Amino acid sequence: VLGNHRLLDVKKRKMKKNTRTETEFIESIRTMARPGHPDVIMGIGDDCAVIRGPRDQVLLITTDMLLEGVHFDLSWHPPRQLGRKAAAVNLSDVAAMGGRAVAALLSICIPDPELPWIREFLAGFVEVLQQHGADLVGGDTVRGKAGTLLSITILGEMLEKNILYRSGALHDDLVWISGPVGLAAAGLELLKAGPQAKKKFPETWQEFIEAHLDPEPQMELGRLLAESGLVHAMMDISDGLATDLAHMCAASGVGAEIAAHDLPLSKALAEAAKHAGVSAIDWQLKGGEDYQLLFAAPAKNETALRQLAAEHAGGTFFCIGRFQRGSGVFLRTPDETRTDITYQGYDHFR
Amino acid sequence: VLGNHRLLDVKKRKMKKNTRTETEFIESIRTMARPGHPDVIMGIGDDCAVIRGPRDQVLLITTDMLLEGVHFDLSWHPPRQLGRKAAAVNLSDVAAMGGRAVAALLSICIPDPELPWIREFLAGFVEVLQQHGADLVGGDTVRGKAGTLLSITILGEMLEKNILYRSGALHDDLVWISGPVGLAAAGLELLKAGPQAKKKFPETWQEFIEAHLDPEPQMELGRLLAESGLVHAMMDISDGLATDLAHMCAASGVGAEIAAHDLPLSKALAEAAKHAGVSAIDWQLKGGEDYQLLFAAPAKNETALRQLAAEHAGGTFFCIGRFQRGSGVFLRTPDETRTDITYQGYDHFR
Repeated sequence: VLGNHRLLDVKKRKMKKNTRTETEFIESIRTMARPGHPDVIMGIGDDCAVIRGPRDQVLLITTDMLLEGVHFDLSWHPPRQLGRKAAAVNLSDVAAMGGRAVAALLSICIPDPELPWIREFLAGFVEVLQQHGADLVGGDTVRGKAGTLLSITILGEMLEKNILYRSGALHDDLVWISGPVGLAAAGLELLKAGPQAKKKFPETWQEFIEAHLDPEPQMELGRLLAESGLVHAMMDISDGLATDLAHMCAASGVGAEIAAHDLPLSKALAEAAKHAGVSAIDWQLKGGEDYQLLFAAPAKNETALRQLAAEHAGGTFFCIGRFQRGSGVFLRTPDETRTDITYQGYDHFR
Repeated sequence: VLGNHRLLDVKKRKMKKNTRTETEFIESIRTMARPGHPDVIMGIGDDCAVIRGPRDQVLLITTDMLLEGVHFDLSWHPPRQLGRKAAAVNLSDVAAMGGRAVAALLSICIPDPELPWIREFLAGFVEVLQQHGADLVGGDTVRGKAGTLLSITILGEMLEKNILYRSGALHDDLVWISGPVGLAAAGLELLKAGPQAKKKFPETWQEFIEAHLDPEPQMELGRLLAESGLVHAMMDISDGLATDLAHMCAASGVGAEIAAHDLPLSKALAEAAKHAGVSAIDWQLKGGEDYQLLFAAPAKNETALRQLAAEHAGGTFFCIGRFQRGSGVFLRTPDETRTDITYQGYDHFR
């Protein structure tokens, strides 16, 4: 969820805050934290920090803090899935650079440690780590009266020359996503309707609930894209497409325009949105936590990218727009309206 | 404070718990977390995890979670010192292996982010990092209603051949500490008397308050000891001498006997203990957070170690006892009484 770059942004999905002080604050911390160590290649500013590693490799490091009531709801999140998600959302930051997973640290603050709950949580956490070849190497636990809080640090590694930063997008590059977005937002909305309502949902909507409870980090795709040499910039979509694309644009010094009708929209998602009384495009643009990859690639690589998706990933990449000179993210709708959607989503500054 | 090995031990200084389930639980997590990645040299089980690093180096990784009301009290801990301490207690785990600091990640959960407080906290945190050559490379912040919670991850590096694990102590090795212990416990006790009382304390007691609020990680000493080749095992003293020595004994498969009269005791500490109505030896044995180094070395290296302390560290190491066959930690008092003090202190299992 929370990228490495967002040091000391305060999550406030349901909270109002003083914007000015917070922006000031993040600037001051970035200034204070300027890297100086010769083995630190990249500090604050991307999905992961980058540190010189073994052989020709670099190590990627990312950390997230997940708090009950803000990032998850224990009333509908089973412990095993929560454990899986806690690992997945951090692994996704490693995928976002193109890396492989190496190791994880897990710290937990819990009000009342119930052994069966923790065992299930850990089983899920370790299961996803092992699936991606990573070890749980440390952590800490504190008993605290507040809600459950998780702090996860993941280490990855990769060849330095293959790293895909979010800052590499060029104007005229195409905007790609590795899969459909808005599914996790739909799932969250459906879960809010309560356990009784859930039973009445059509089978096709279960995918959305799964997308929210148990997202899949795009490790294999991230690695393939980084090694392909076809891509200029990459990050994962954790805060929502509009916000994350705005992050990529800001980091790259470009703007972008995406087309509403190029966003993949299934019949089931359209129906779920109708049922929930919201617009599907809101879920697609503003809903976070899909953990698909967002990437920038020159137009000449379009065919090669489509082949790569089909051959290796068994799926489809979606080309949804184009980077352009200037700044800001714009949405073009079928009636040719052009709307500024920069940082629409779970923005840290609003 | 909380070593890497203590994954999912629940801190409960003031809490009672079901011992059996917790012990079971830690066993199950260690089993689940068994390292498999070829670049993971050491997982759970020491002050830091060890991962293959650049050149001939390994990377050390350690993480701690510090919670208001459990690990610190904001009513007497100024933000700058708290920031310094948050960095120091984690750097101490790197010192405990003999490593140098490289980078840190800092995540904060705060109820109400007050900019001046956070600025001061961060200034202290970064100050100590910079003093030891480390960069702040990432982190996360969440707004949560509970008290302030800090999650810190530190990366260090060193030559693999110089690593000092806690498991290397041999019977007949001498037990050494890098400086006096019990000072931080005295400081905490004095702080509990409140701000008014503090003003009446003699000048000599300020050192104890400083020891609690702003401890110094023994980075230079740790490195010197690891490079000296004189030492078999090392760890830092964070939970108290009796408990940490018991950890070293258990990891090394030996026991130890220390002599009460060999523990360095200043006149000021004796006076402060008398004032507080406690026994100074309780502070020395059970008081945690001194962050001195505890190490095991063969008797033949005694002179060389004393020289190393005098020449490089400008201080003194204290030889306080001897490792022996068997298990458990025993205290010998001047009247030749021998008391079992295994895990006396802030034990996680009592």
